[in-house]
Amino acid sequence: MIIVMESGASEGQVQAVVEKVQAAGLNTHISVGVARTVIGVVGDDRTKEMLRESLEVAPGVERVVPILQPFKLVSREFIPHDTVVTVGSQTIGGAKVAVIAGPCSVESREQILATADAVKAAGAGLLRGGAFKPRTSPYSFQGLEEEGLRLLAEARERTGLPIVTEAMDAAQLELVARYADMIQIGARNMQNYPLLRGAGRSRLPVMLKRGVSATLEELLLAAEYILNEGNYQVVLCERGIRGFNAHTRYTLDLSAVPVLKRLTHLPVIVDPSHGTGKWRYVAPMARAAVAAGADGLLVEVHPNPAAALSDGPQSLNPDNFADLMASLRLLAQAIGRAI
Amino acid sequence: MIIVMESGASEGQVQAVVEKVQAAGLNTHISVGVARTVIGVVGDDRTKEMLRESLEVAPGVERVVPILQPFKLVSREFIPHDTVVTVGSQTIGGAKVAVIAGPCSVESREQILATADAVKAAGAGLLRGGAFKPRTSPYSFQGLEEEGLRLLAEARERTGLPIVTEAMDAAQLELVARYADMIQIGARNMQNYPLLRGAGRSRLPVMLKRGVSATLEELLLAAEYILNEGNYQVVLCERGIRGFNAHTRYTLDLSAVPVLKRLTHLPVIVDPSHGTGKWRYVAPMARAAVAAGADGLLVEVHPNPAAALSDGPQSLNPDNFADLMASLRLLAQAIGRAI
Amino acid sequence: MIIVMESGASEGQVQAVVEKVQAAGLNTHISVGVARTVIGVVGDDRTKEMLRESLEVAPGVERVVPILQPFKLVSREFIPHDTVVTVGSQTIGGAKVAVIAGPCSVESREQILATADAVKAAGAGLLRGGAFKPRTSPYSFQGLEEEGLRLLAEARERTGLPIVTEAMDAAQLELVARYADMIQIGARNMQNYPLLRGAGRSRLPVMLKRGVSATLEELLLAAEYILNEGNYQVVLCERGIRGFNAHTRYTLDLSAVPVLKRLTHLPVIVDPSHGTGKWRYVAPMARAAVAAGADGLLVEVHPNPAAALSDGPQSLNPDNFADLMASLRLLAQAIGRAI
Amino acid sequence: MIIVMESGASEGQVQAVVEKVQAAGLNTHISVGVARTVIGVVGDDRTKEMLRESLEVAPGVERVVPILQPFKLVSREFIPHDTVVTVGSQTIGGAKVAVIAGPCSVESREQILATADAVKAAGAGLLRGGAFKPRTSPYSFQGLEEEGLRLLAEARERTGLPIVTEAMDAAQLELVARYADMIQIGARNMQNYPLLRGAGRSRLPVMLKRGVSATLEELLLAAEYILNEGNYQVVLCERGIRGFNAHTRYTLDLSAVPVLKRLTHLPVIVDPSHGTGKWRYVAPMARAAVAAGADGLLVEVHPNPAAALSDGPQSLNPDNFADLMASLRLLAQAIGRAI
Repeated sequence: MIIVMESGASEGQVQAVVEKVQAAGLNTHISVGVARTVIGVVGDDRTKEMLRESLEVAPGVERVVPILQPFKLVSREFIPHDTVVTVGSQTIGGAKVAVIAGPCSVESREQILATADAVKAAGAGLLRGGAFKPRTSPYSFQGLEEEGLRLLAEARERTGLPIVTEAMDAAQLELVARYADMIQIGARNMQNYPLLRGAGRSRLPVMLKRGVSATLEELLLAAEYILNEGNYQVVLCERGIRGFNAHTRYTLDLSAVPVLKRLTHLPVIVDPSHGTGKWRYVAPMARAAVAAGADGLLVEVHPNPAAALSDGPQSLNPDNFADLMASLRLLAQAIGRAI
Repeated sequence: MIIVMESGASEGQVQAVVEKVQAAGLNTHISVGVARTVIGVVGDDRTKEMLRESLEVAPGVERVVPILQPFKLVSREFIPHDTVVTVGSQTIGGAKVAVIAGPCSVESREQILATADAVKAAGAGLLRGGAFKPRTSPYSFQGLEEEGLRLLAEARERTGLPIVTEAMDAAQLELVARYADMIQIGARNMQNYPLLRGAGRSRLPVMLKRGVSATLEELLLAAEYILNEGNYQVVLCERGIRGFNAHTRYTLDLSAVPVLKRLTHLPVIVDPSHGTGKWRYVAPMARAAVAAGADGLLVEVHPNPAAALSDGPQSLNPDNFADLMASLRLLAQAIGRAI
Repeated sequence: MIIVMESGASEGQVQAVVEKVQAAGLNTHISVGVARTVIGVVGDDRTKEMLRESLEVAPGVERVVPILQPFKLVSREFIPHDTVVTVGSQTIGGAKVAVIAGPCSVESREQILATADAVKAAGAGLLRGGAFKPRTSPYSFQGLEEEGLRLLAEARERTGLPIVTEAMDAAQLELVARYADMIQIGARNMQNYPLLRGAGRSRLPVMLKRGVSATLEELLLAAEYILNEGNYQVVLCERGIRGFNAHTRYTLDLSAVPVLKRLTHLPVIVDPSHGTGKWRYVAPMARAAVAAGADGLLVEVHPNPAAALSDGPQSLNPDNFADLMASLRLLAQAIGRAI
Repeated sequence: MIIVMESGASEGQVQAVVEKVQAAGLNTHISVGVARTVIGVVGDDRTKEMLRESLEVAPGVERVVPILQPFKLVSREFIPHDTVVTVGSQTIGGAKVAVIAGPCSVESREQILATADAVKAAGAGLLRGGAFKPRTSPYSFQGLEEEGLRLLAEARERTGLPIVTEAMDAAQLELVARYADMIQIGARNMQNYPLLRGAGRSRLPVMLKRGVSATLEELLLAAEYILNEGNYQVVLCERGIRGFNAHTRYTLDLSAVPVLKRLTHLPVIVDPSHGTGKWRYVAPMARAAVAAGADGLLVEVHPNPAAALSDGPQSLNPDNFADLMASLRLLAQAIGRAI
């Protein structure tokens, strides 16, 4: 930690800061420049972090520059090798690019079974589908709830595909965990701490979606809540950030993929459906995500997008999805991976 | 609702769209321009909204332009006069500018009582303080929980100030409601729908903070969830959006104040403490918020910011807060309000 | 164009708007809904565009929704087939992915010749290098000016690579055009209209970089200035937008690629060097750009990045660049293109 | 300057960095922490800045943290007292809040003289009006050019108001300087370095508008270009940044006002007309700007906004402007200033 003093800071102010730091059991190096005095702080990280805010308010301090990352368990420094997350019969995080596909919402038995059959036939490894739906408007379709979970389980039995579905609230976790192979925590809930802690305490793998304006540190600290409860089976998902390109619903931040792969050992996947909000941009952005190094994709597929109760405009139909999978197979091979 | 066809759309595609709209019981006006055909849709709003996404996916459709706002109960069109929210002995939304002040977290009996005394003496009308704290890092102080609520209640008895405190989760609502005069829903939880619905079902007034990248429509639709449960006692709070000015923690979007006042009948307040993240910018931005037409302020005050367990850098000490209140009194008078 | 009236607009206000529109020679369709009256306007586009702002201010008008895109010559509707831009011996916009590589700044004869040799050997088709450098700080290296242009020309003679270099100002165009095969207009100058017009009047192909907060409409309208002067040889370049991911200098908006390819006939290339600002993310984002459908890449290469006078941290060294080219060859093939 | 080494950096890498720094004549302090080694660098600032990028690329370096601000002449540390800029008979930067008002574009003799009379009567101190107009579309009105400048000069003679008008290009400076009392550099040209240098060499005061996605450092470095040519008569203008609130054209970043006032001695004014893009939000945001501490306002006024050739929707008519001035007088007094 580095403390930068104001240019007009007095000797007494510098002394007071040094005493405060030393009183906490940390060591200091003082460096007196022409324009400013800079104080380096050495010692226990937790102590430094606890002191940080109070040092920012100390008289004469211009700013405090942390040197270390604020997260620990999720960091590559803590676990240098790639984590592989196991979801039923499938894995996420190895050489194979995992494809999770399915409808936004489970709408009916016919719809989810038809979709499960179609995405399995095209080569997807996992099935997604929402039973509890967080919707911007209270007047939109809110999901089939437990009936939706039951239909997902039926689709799993029929196809063998493990299922990924969202819990919106800590109180829903127990019910969702009874059916799901992987719990999804949505972008709106990325910082819902009771939910993160509950997911951490569950035995299930978790897919954590980045909030639409979350920094990568915030995403990693949200994951840290889960790992801190003893659950290391976490997959991060980039799904678009708030931007100003009106032609897509969000701005897919693909550079987050190589950056996250460098900062953390957790697998990183990409959701081009929410990231673009328009089905016609899903295929090129799915290819771009794989080329950028993503460990997997989350793709919305609906047997009849024009009749979907939610997210129709960003859903692929089965034919488009099969075409996408074919092109991804060639692409994955070209970069030394499989799909 | 207006449907804009692609420039190369065929007559058959136009016809198919018209039939789809009419089959839902809506009327159409077709307008054939040089470059494009545009279809106007007239009829029941709910039906239009339900058709919207499926029309976006129909062959030949370029885009669908909604004409109406997606929210209803919160809109000025639904209730033209200003809503006044009553919180214990105080009101928010009338000619008087409400000031809610107090520490970020309740830390101890001494701390909360000293702060309550100080903000009351300086003229604040309500006391804020967090007992359950949503913190970016799992390693930060997480709040005193029920003990914090009890201390807030003691501060209320001593000073008469109604108390405002946060619930992070629907499951916490019952406990929080036992002590609080107003429930705060934080920025990270703006789209936590079980929490919004639960707050709607409670009898208490609710302060809903804007998410850091929420559009104003999203904020108003989140409030709509609360009103839709029958609770119209809702105050909206602007607290800064994600921006790229590194000198402040967020970018305080003060133009949201006059825009929201035009769109909704609900009171609008501003939190310059979180909005700037730096105590030295709190006073000018508090003044700016009142000048922009805010119905109230939410200000963090701590007896000793350098010792605060959270948000010290953005907290005013009691002297700075008293100075701010003095300047706000003159300012409020100059624009025809009181404080 | 659609005019949406306020919910309380009077019949007289509607009538006044209709008269204003008809007085300009345009036709109207009135549609009276439950909540609002909507007026459709049909007729000459230029007339509509000129009326638009004054209609927005007319009493009783809520908003005016334009239906047509504001650009013309650059649009796919105007020219449906892909434009191929010819730069010396090379083309940009066909099946082959064009790679433009070289240093940020021309620094010396040795540096530019060594770089030209290296990028040619690795398979680049064009050479970039700045002689006039727009630098954020007046204290940074500002370029070798005409001497830099002369060195670029020498590198072209030696390698046969056409050269791409920036003009910062309309007054520099004549000089730059004497040496360059393609004029670059930088992100900071995307809306420098005298420069756009001057580049339009020159005979040379132009590479126009997107401003860091430009919408795609603004980028296309900037290109429209160039085409409007009779020069249709324009290539658009995505190079990152302002975001909040602190790990990269900008946020590379790759979804701009498929969106632009749909809106315009002009070729679209990507600059992953400026887009990320960090050499270690250049290769994955270059691959992602090609997978997203980019027609080319602009990559900074320096023989010794640690000694570069500008942009060292984002420059590849010759070995990294050769590795990137090898991986791009496989990738391009997998998506049916060549490099 | 602080150099943070990667957690796995070898001793040899640390040594190589230290040698590189010392070879440039700078001193180092090494601090070996548990997780990382940190190297403090002390010595001449210019040398440090020149080394920075090459250190970022050195093997084993994680990142380089600059301690000093990158600007000098514009900083409060260089000139601690407030600069007062003199424009004809008026000043900007003292206790009085300067109001610059007038139309977006000069359109005709009647229009500019009527506006000048109206804003003078309402109490404005300076007259604005564009003769050269940077327009997003090549099909929009581009200004009356020299004829516009002549009309502005006539308005000055008639009213005594000094005139502020834009130059879009270094080549226009000589002509504009022949008529103007203050040169405006627009947001799109904030980083047009030939223009900044030319304005620096002129004798005239300069109003520099912040680019819509410029950081405050970038704005201050752009001003530094002007001061570096010997012209210290510079006023900074906040006019809105790119945001995602669709109800206003830009997001007015008022916290920039107190932050800039702390970082620089230059006066800071605010343009609520461009900042909001809607006349109905101009008055509340003008009041908020003054309450936040702005030294002045730039307000668009047009005798008949519905007939304006540019920016009608954001222009006040003379009555609204007179009302605004009346409210600002009371407000300025309440915060100890005058208008």
